[in-house]
Amino acid sequence: MNGPEIVRMIQLLAKLPGLGPRSARRATLHLLKKREALMRPLAQALGQAADAIRTCTVCGNFDTVDPCTVCRDDRRDAATICVIADVADLWAMERGHVFNGRYHVLGGTLSALDGVGPEDLNIAALVARVRSGSVNEVILATNATVDGQTTAHYIADRLAEFASVKVSRLAHGLPVGGEIDHLDDGTLSAAFKARRVV
Amino acid sequence: MNGPEIVRMIQLLAKLPGLGPRSARRATLHLLKKREALMRPLAQALGQAADAIRTCTVCGNFDTVDPCTVCRDDRRDAATICVIADVADLWAMERGHVFNGRYHVLGGTLSALDGVGPEDLNIAALVARVRSGSVNEVILATNATVDGQTTAHYIADRLAEFASVKVSRLAHGLPVGGEIDHLDDGTLSAAFKARRVV
Repeated sequence: MNGPEIVRMIQLLAKLPGLGPRSARRATLHLLKKREALMRPLAQALGQAADAIRTCTVCGNFDTVDPCTVCRDDRRDAATICVIADVADLWAMERGHVFNGRYHVLGGTLSALDGVGPEDLNIAALVARVRSGSVNEVILATNATVDGQTTAHYIADRLAEFASVKVSRLAHGLPVGGEIDHLDDGTLSAAFKARRVV
Repeated sequence: MNGPEIVRMIQLLAKLPGLGPRSARRATLHLLKKREALMRPLAQALGQAADAIRTCTVCGNFDTVDPCTVCRDDRRDAATICVIADVADLWAMERGHVFNGRYHVLGGTLSALDGVGPEDLNIAALVARVRSGSVNEVILATNATVDGQTTAHYIADRLAEFASVKVSRLAHGLPVGGEIDHLDDGTLSAAFKARRVV
Protein backbone atom coordinates (compact mmCIF):
# COMPACT_ATOMS: atom_id res chain seq x y z
CA MET A 1 0.00 0.00 0.00
CA ASN A 2 3.01 2.29 0.30
CA GLY A 3 3.83 4.49 -2.66
CA PRO A 4 6.85 3.69 -4.85
CA GLU A 5 8.99 6.41 -3.23
CA ILE A 6 8.63 4.86 0.22
CA VAL A 7 9.01 1.29 -1.05
CA ARG A 8 12.25 2.26 -2.81
CA MET A 9 13.63 3.96 0.32
CA ILE A 10 12.90 0.85 2.38
CA GLN A 11 14.47 -1.45 -0.23
CA LEU A 12 17.68 0.58 -0.47
CA LEU A 13 18.05 1.12 3.29
CA ALA A 14 17.54 -2.63 3.82
CA LYS A 15 20.74 -3.21 1.83
CA LEU A 16 22.86 -1.49 4.48
CA PRO A 17 24.73 -3.86 6.81
CA GLY A 18 22.89 -4.24 10.10
CA LEU A 19 19.53 -3.18 8.66
CA GLY A 20 16.94 -5.77 7.67
CA PRO A 21 13.52 -5.12 6.14
CA ARG A 22 12.02 -4.38 9.55
CA SER A 23 14.65 -1.90 10.72
CA ALA A 24 14.71 -0.35 7.23
CA ARG A 25 11.00 0.41 7.67
CA ARG A 26 11.72 1.94 11.07
CA ALA A 27 14.55 4.03 9.62
CA THR A 28 12.31 5.14 6.73
CA LEU A 29 9.57 6.28 9.12
CA HIS A 30 12.13 8.08 11.26
CA LEU A 31 13.46 9.89 8.18
CA LEU A 32 9.95 10.76 6.95
CA LYS A 33 9.22 12.35 10.33
CA LYS A 34 12.41 14.41 10.11
CA ARG A 35 12.33 15.33 6.46
CA GLU A 36 14.09 18.70 6.79
CA ALA A 37 16.26 17.96 9.82
CA LEU A 38 17.65 14.60 8.72
CA MET A 39 16.32 13.22 5.43
CA ARG A 40 17.40 16.06 3.13
CA PRO A 41 20.78 16.54 4.86
CA LEU A 42 21.45 12.80 4.54
CA ALA A 43 20.46 12.81 0.86
CA GLN A 44 22.85 15.72 0.27
CA ALA A 45 25.66 14.22 2.34
CA LEU A 46 25.42 10.93 0.40
CA GLY A 47 25.35 12.74 -2.94
CA GLN A 48 28.29 14.98 -2.03
CA ALA A 49 30.36 12.10 -0.69
CA ALA A 50 29.60 10.00 -3.77
CA ASP A 51 30.95 12.89 -5.87
CA ALA A 52 33.95 13.73 -3.71
CA ILE A 53 35.30 10.43 -2.41
CA ARG A 54 37.64 8.36 -4.53
CA THR A 55 39.73 5.24 -3.94
CA CYS A 56 43.46 5.92 -3.43
CA THR A 57 45.32 4.32 -6.35
CA VAL A 58 48.35 3.73 -4.12
CA CYS A 59 46.88 2.07 -1.04
CA GLY A 60 43.13 1.61 -1.62
CA ASN A 61 41.99 4.02 1.13
CA PHE A 62 38.93 6.26 0.62
CA ASP A 63 39.65 9.99 0.46
CA THR A 64 38.80 13.15 -1.47
CA VAL A 65 42.33 13.24 -2.85
CA ASP A 66 44.34 10.62 -4.73
CA PRO A 67 46.91 9.66 -3.46
CA CYS A 68 45.12 9.83 -0.08
CA THR A 69 46.22 12.04 2.82
CA VAL A 70 47.95 9.07 4.51
CA CYS A 71 50.01 8.34 1.38
CA ARG A 72 50.83 12.05 0.97
CA ASP A 73 51.89 12.59 4.58
CA ASP A 74 55.70 12.94 4.65
CA ARG A 75 55.75 12.63 8.43
CA ARG A 76 54.63 9.02 8.05
CA ASP A 77 57.17 6.27 7.47
CA ALA A 78 56.95 5.35 3.78
CA ALA A 79 59.26 2.36 4.28
CA THR A 80 56.74 0.45 6.46
CA ILE A 81 53.53 -0.85 4.91
CA CYS A 82 50.71 -2.30 7.00
CA VAL A 83 48.59 -4.71 4.92
CA ILE A 84 44.91 -4.81 5.91
CA ALA A 85 41.82 -6.46 4.50
CA ASP A 86 39.46 -3.49 4.61
CA VAL A 87 39.34 0.30 4.97
CA ALA A 88 37.48 -0.34 8.24
CA ASP A 89 40.74 -1.75 9.65
CA LEU A 90 42.59 1.37 8.52
CA TRP A 91 40.02 3.54 10.32
CA ALA A 92 40.38 1.41 13.48
CA MET A 93 44.18 1.78 13.43
CA GLU A 94 44.02 5.52 12.79
CA ARG A 95 41.47 5.96 15.61
CA GLY A 96 43.89 4.21 17.94
CA HIS A 97 46.96 6.10 16.64
CA VAL A 98 48.83 2.78 16.77
CA PHE A 99 50.73 2.95 13.49
CA ASN A 100 52.65 5.69 11.74
CA GLY A 101 53.57 4.08 8.41
CA ARG A 102 51.60 3.63 5.20
CA TYR A 103 48.80 1.18 4.49
CA HIS A 104 47.80 -1.26 1.78
CA VAL A 105 44.13 -2.24 1.60
CA LEU A 106 43.53 -5.69 0.08
CA GLY A 107 39.79 -5.24 -0.32
CA GLY A 108 38.96 -8.57 1.33
CA THR A 109 40.57 -11.88 2.25
CA LEU A 110 41.17 -15.03 0.27
CA SER A 111 38.22 -17.36 0.64
CA ALA A 112 37.71 -20.70 -1.11
CA LEU A 113 34.13 -20.73 0.14
CA ASP A 114 33.25 -17.32 -1.30
CA GLY A 115 35.38 -17.86 -4.40
CA VAL A 116 37.80 -15.02 -3.63
CA GLY A 117 41.17 -15.71 -5.24
CA PRO A 118 44.45 -13.71 -5.24
CA GLU A 119 43.47 -11.92 -8.46
CA ASP A 120 40.34 -10.55 -6.74
CA LEU A 121 42.44 -8.80 -4.12
CA ASN A 122 44.73 -5.77 -4.36
CA ILE A 123 47.84 -7.99 -4.10
CA ALA A 124 49.61 -7.30 -7.41
CA ALA A 125 49.79 -3.61 -6.52
CA LEU A 126 51.34 -4.50 -3.14
CA VAL A 127 54.03 -6.61 -4.83
CA ALA A 128 54.70 -3.70 -7.21
CA ARG A 129 55.01 -1.28 -4.28
CA VAL A 130 57.54 -3.59 -2.60
CA ARG A 131 59.40 -4.15 -5.88
CA SER A 132 59.76 -0.37 -6.30
CA GLY A 133 62.45 -0.72 -3.63
CA SER A 134 61.65 1.86 -0.96
CA VAL A 135 59.99 -0.58 1.48
CA ASN A 136 61.80 -2.05 4.50
CA GLU A 137 58.99 -3.86 6.29
CA VAL A 138 55.58 -5.25 5.44
CA ILE A 139 53.32 -5.86 8.46
CA LEU A 140 50.58 -8.39 7.68
CA ALA A 141 47.61 -7.21 9.75
CA THR A 142 44.84 -9.41 8.43
CA ASN A 143 42.20 -10.77 10.81
CA ALA A 144 43.12 -13.67 13.08
CA THR A 145 40.57 -15.85 11.28
CA VAL A 146 41.28 -18.84 9.04
CA ASP A 147 40.76 -16.76 5.88
CA GLY A 148 42.80 -13.87 7.30
CA GLN A 149 45.71 -16.14 8.21
CA THR A 150 45.54 -17.91 4.82
CA THR A 151 45.74 -14.51 3.14
CA ALA A 152 48.71 -13.50 5.29
CA HIS A 153 50.55 -16.74 4.44
CA TYR A 154 49.86 -16.29 0.74
CA ILE A 155 51.20 -12.73 0.77
CA ALA A 156 54.25 -13.74 2.80
CA ASP A 157 55.01 -16.34 0.09
CA ARG A 158 54.58 -13.76 -2.67
CA LEU A 159 56.97 -11.38 -0.88
CA ALA A 160 59.62 -14.06 -0.13
CA GLU A 161 61.54 -13.08 -3.27
CA PHE A 162 62.40 -9.69 -1.75
CA ALA A 163 65.10 -10.87 0.64
CA SER A 164 65.81 -7.42 2.03
CA VAL A 165 62.23 -6.76 3.07
CA LYS A 166 61.15 -7.86 6.54
CA VAL A 167 57.68 -9.44 6.59
CA SER A 168 56.00 -9.50 10.02
CA ARG A 169 52.57 -10.16 11.45
CA LEU A 170 50.70 -8.80 14.47
CA ALA A 171 51.22 -10.64 17.76
CA HIS A 172 48.60 -13.00 19.16
CA GLY A 173 47.86 -12.97 22.89
CA LEU A 174 45.62 -11.75 25.66
CA PRO A 175 43.59 -8.69 24.73
CA VAL A 176 44.48 -5.83 27.10
CA GLY A 177 41.84 -5.89 29.86
CA GLY A 178 40.85 -9.42 28.87
CA GLU A 179 40.19 -12.13 31.44
CA ILE A 180 41.91 -15.50 31.06
CA ASP A 181 38.74 -17.28 32.16
CA HIS A 182 36.91 -15.94 29.11
CA LEU A 183 39.62 -16.57 26.51
CA ASP A 184 39.30 -19.21 23.85
CA ASP A 185 41.89 -22.03 23.82
CA GLY A 186 43.55 -20.81 20.61
CA THR A 187 44.33 -17.38 22.06
CA LEU A 188 45.48 -18.87 25.36
CA SER A 189 47.76 -21.30 23.56
CA ALA A 190 49.16 -18.49 21.38
CA ALA A 191 49.75 -16.35 24.47
CA PHE A 192 51.73 -19.19 26.10
CA LYS A 193 53.84 -19.77 23.01
CA ALA A 194 54.62 -16.07 22.65
CA ARG A 195 55.34 -15.56 26.38
CA ARG A 196 58.13 -13.17 27.23
CA VAL A 197 60.68 -13.07 30.04
CA VAL A 198 59.94 -10.09 32.33
CA MET B 1 41.57 11.54 10.08
CA ASN B 2 38.48 11.06 7.88
CA GLY B 3 37.53 13.91 5.61
CA PRO B 4 34.48 16.08 6.43
CA GLU B 5 32.29 14.32 3.83
CA ILE B 6 32.81 10.92 5.46
CA VAL B 7 32.49 12.28 8.98
CA ARG B 8 29.17 13.92 8.07
CA MET B 9 27.84 10.71 6.51
CA ILE B 10 28.71 8.75 9.65
CA GLN B 11 27.13 11.39 11.91
CA LEU B 12 23.86 11.47 9.96
CA LEU B 13 23.58 7.70 9.55
CA ALA B 14 24.21 7.29 13.30
CA LYS B 15 20.97 9.22 13.91
CA LEU B 16 18.89 6.46 12.33
CA PRO B 17 17.14 4.15 14.80
CA GLY B 18 19.07 0.92 15.22
CA LEU B 19 22.37 2.41 14.03
CA GLY B 20 25.00 3.56 16.54
CA PRO B 21 28.37 5.16 15.73
CA ARG B 22 29.92 1.76 15.06
CA SER B 23 27.25 0.45 12.69
CA ALA B 24 27.06 3.89 11.03
CA ARG B 25 30.77 3.53 10.19
CA ARG B 26 30.10 0.07 8.77
CA ALA B 27 27.18 1.38 6.72
CA THR B 28 29.31 4.30 5.47
CA LEU B 29 32.08 1.95 4.33
CA HIS B 30 29.53 -0.31 2.65
CA LEU B 31 28.08 2.68 0.79
CA LEU B 32 31.53 3.98 -0.21
CA LYS B 33 32.30 0.58 -1.71
CA LYS B 34 29.05 0.64 -3.69
CA ARG B 35 29.01 4.27 -4.74
CA GLU B 36 27.19 3.80 -8.03
CA ALA B 37 25.11 0.73 -7.16
CA LEU B 38 23.79 1.89 -3.78
CA MET B 39 25.04 5.27 -2.54
CA ARG B 40 23.83 7.46 -5.41
CA PRO B 41 20.49 5.61 -5.76
CA LEU B 42 19.92 6.02 -2.00
CA ALA B 43 20.80 9.72 -2.13
CA GLN B 44 18.34 10.16 -4.99
CA ALA B 45 15.60 8.08 -3.35
CA LEU B 46 15.90 10.10 -0.15
CA GLY B 47 15.81 13.39 -2.05
CA GLN B 48 12.84 12.35 -4.19
CA ALA B 49 10.88 11.03 -1.21
CA ALA B 50 11.61 14.19 0.77
CA ASP B 51 10.14 16.18 -2.12
CA ALA B 52 7.17 13.93 -2.83
CA ILE B 53 5.94 12.69 0.54
CA ARG B 54 3.59 14.83 2.61
CA THR B 55 1.61 14.29 5.80
CA CYS B 56 -2.11 13.67 5.24
CA THR B 57 -4.00 16.58 6.83
CA VAL B 58 -6.96 14.29 7.57
CA CYS B 59 -5.35 11.30 9.27
CA GLY B 60 -1.61 11.98 9.62
CA ASN B 61 -0.47 9.21 7.25
CA PHE B 62 2.50 9.72 4.89
CA ASP B 63 1.69 9.74 1.18
CA THR B 64 2.39 11.59 -2.05
CA VAL B 65 -1.19 12.90 -2.09
CA ASP B 66 -3.15 14.81 0.53
CA PRO B 67 -5.66 13.48 1.60
CA CYS B 68 -3.81 10.16 1.48
CA THR B 69 -4.89 7.16 -0.61
CA VAL B 70 -6.50 5.53 2.46
CA CYS B 71 -8.61 8.63 3.18
CA ARG B 72 -9.56 8.91 -0.53
CA ASP B 73 -10.53 5.25 -0.94
CA ASP B 74 -14.35 5.09 -1.16
CA ARG B 75 -14.30 1.31 -0.75
CA ARG B 76 -13.08 1.83 2.82
CA ASP B 77 -15.55 2.42 5.63
CA ALA B 78 -15.38 6.15 6.43
CA ALA B 79 -17.57 5.69 9.52
CA THR B 80 -14.98 3.64 11.40
CA ILE B 81 -11.76 5.30 12.57
CA CYS B 82 -8.85 3.33 13.98
CA VAL B 83 -6.71 5.51 16.26
CA ILE B 84 -3.02 4.61 16.29
CA ALA B 85 0.10 6.14 17.79
CA ASP B 86 2.35 6.02 14.76
CA VAL B 87 2.38 5.54 10.99
CA ALA B 88 4.33 2.32 11.68
CA ASP B 89 1.14 0.89 13.22
CA LEU B 90 -0.82 1.86 10.10
CA TRP B 91 1.74 0.06 7.94
CA ALA B 92 1.51 -3.03 10.16
CA MET B 93 -2.30 -3.08 9.89
CA GLU B 94 -2.25 -2.56 6.13
CA ARG B 95 0.34 -5.32 5.71
CA GLY B 96 -1.98 -7.66 7.60
CA HIS B 97 -5.13 -6.49 5.75
CA VAL B 98 -6.89 -6.57 9.11
CA PHE B 99 -8.88 -3.32 8.92
CA ASN B 100 -10.91 -1.71 6.18
CA GLY B 101 -11.85 1.65 7.73
CA ARG B 102 -9.96 4.92 8.03
CA TYR B 103 -7.10 5.78 10.37
CA HIS B 104 -6.10 8.57 12.69
CA VAL B 105 -2.41 8.87 13.56
CA LEU B 106 -1.76 10.50 16.94
CA GLY B 107 1.96 10.99 16.38
CA GLY B 108 2.93 9.44 19.72
CA THR B 109 1.47 8.57 23.12
CA LEU B 110 0.90 10.64 26.23
CA SER B 111 3.95 10.40 28.47
CA ALA B 112 4.48 12.26 31.73
CA LEU B 113 8.12 11.10 31.69
CA ASP B 114 8.87 12.46 28.23
CA GLY B 115 6.67 15.54 28.75
CA VAL B 116 4.19 14.61 26.02
CA GLY B 117 0.77 16.16 26.76
CA PRO B 118 -2.55 16.01 24.85
CA GLU B 119 -1.73 19.20 22.96
CA ASP B 120 1.41 17.53 21.55
CA LEU B 121 -0.67 14.81 19.90
CA ASN B 122 -3.06 14.93 16.96
CA ILE B 123 -6.09 14.64 19.27
CA ALA B 124 -7.98 17.90 18.56
CA ALA B 125 -8.23 16.88 14.88
CA LEU B 126 -9.66 13.50 15.92
CA VAL B 127 -12.34 15.18 18.06
CA ALA B 128 -13.16 17.47 15.12
CA ARG B 129 -13.47 14.45 12.78
CA VAL B 130 -15.87 12.77 15.21
CA ARG B 131 -17.79 16.02 15.73
CA SER B 132 -18.29 16.33 11.96
CA GLY B 133 -20.92 13.61 12.46
CA SER B 134 -20.13 10.89 9.93
CA VAL B 135 -18.33 8.58 12.39
CA ASN B 136 -20.02 5.55 14.00
CA GLU B 137 -17.11 3.90 15.78
CA VAL B 138 -13.65 4.85 17.03
CA ILE B 139 -11.31 1.91 17.66
CA LEU B 140 -8.52 2.82 20.07
CA ALA B 141 -5.54 0.79 18.87
CA THR B 142 -2.73 2.23 20.94
CA ASN B 143 -0.02 -0.06 22.29
CA ALA B 144 -0.78 -2.25 25.30
CA THR B 145 1.80 -0.32 27.33
CA VAL B 146 1.14 1.99 30.29
CA ASP B 147 1.52 5.08 28.09
CA GLY B 148 -0.57 3.53 25.31
CA GLN B 149 -3.40 2.63 27.69
CA THR B 150 -3.27 6.06 29.36
CA THR B 151 -3.60 7.65 25.92
CA ALA B 152 -6.56 5.39 25.06
CA HIS B 153 -8.31 6.29 28.33
CA TYR B 154 -7.73 9.99 27.77
CA ILE B 155 -9.18 9.85 24.24
CA ALA B 156 -12.15 7.76 25.41
CA ASP B 157 -12.90 10.53 27.94
CA ARG B 158 -12.62 13.22 25.29
CA LEU B 159 -15.03 11.31 23.03
CA ALA B 160 -17.56 10.57 25.81
CA GLU B 161 -19.60 13.62 24.81
CA PHE B 162 -20.53 11.98 21.49
CA ALA B 163 -23.14 9.57 22.80
CA SER B 164 -23.92 8.06 19.41
CA VAL B 165 -20.31 7.10 18.68
CA LYS B 166 -19.12 3.68 19.85
CA VAL B 167 -15.60 3.78 21.33
CA SER B 168 -13.84 0.39 21.42
CA ARG B 169 -10.38 -0.94 22.00
CA LEU B 170 -8.46 -3.96 20.68
CA ALA B 171 -8.85 -7.20 22.64
CA HIS B 172 -6.16 -8.49 24.95
CA GLY B 173 -5.37 -12.18 25.00
CA LEU B 174 -3.09 -14.93 23.75
CA PRO B 175 -1.17 -14.05 20.59
CA VAL B 176 -2.09 -16.52 17.84
CA GLY B 177 0.57 -19.22 17.89
CA GLY B 178 1.65 -18.11 21.37
CA GLU B 179 2.47 -20.59 24.12
CA ILE B 180 0.82 -20.17 27.51
CA ASP B 181 4.05 -21.17 29.21
CA HIS B 182 5.80 -18.10 27.75
CA LEU B 183 3.06 -15.54 28.40
CA ASP B 184 3.37 -12.81 31.00
CA ASP B 185 0.87 -12.78 33.88
CA GLY B 186 -0.90 -9.65 32.65
CA THR B 187 -1.74 -11.18 29.26
CA LEU B 188 -2.77 -14.47 30.85
CA SER B 189 -5.05 -12.70 33.30
CA ALA B 190 -6.55 -10.58 30.48
CA ALA B 191 -7.14 -13.72 28.42
CA PHE B 192 -9.00 -15.34 31.33
CA LYS B 193 -11.17 -12.27 31.91
CA ALA B 194 -12.05 -12.01 28.22
CA ARG B 195 -12.71 -15.75 27.81
CA ARG B 196 -15.59 -16.73 25.54
CA VAL B 197 -18.06 -19.59 25.57
CA VAL B 198 -17.36 -21.94 22.65
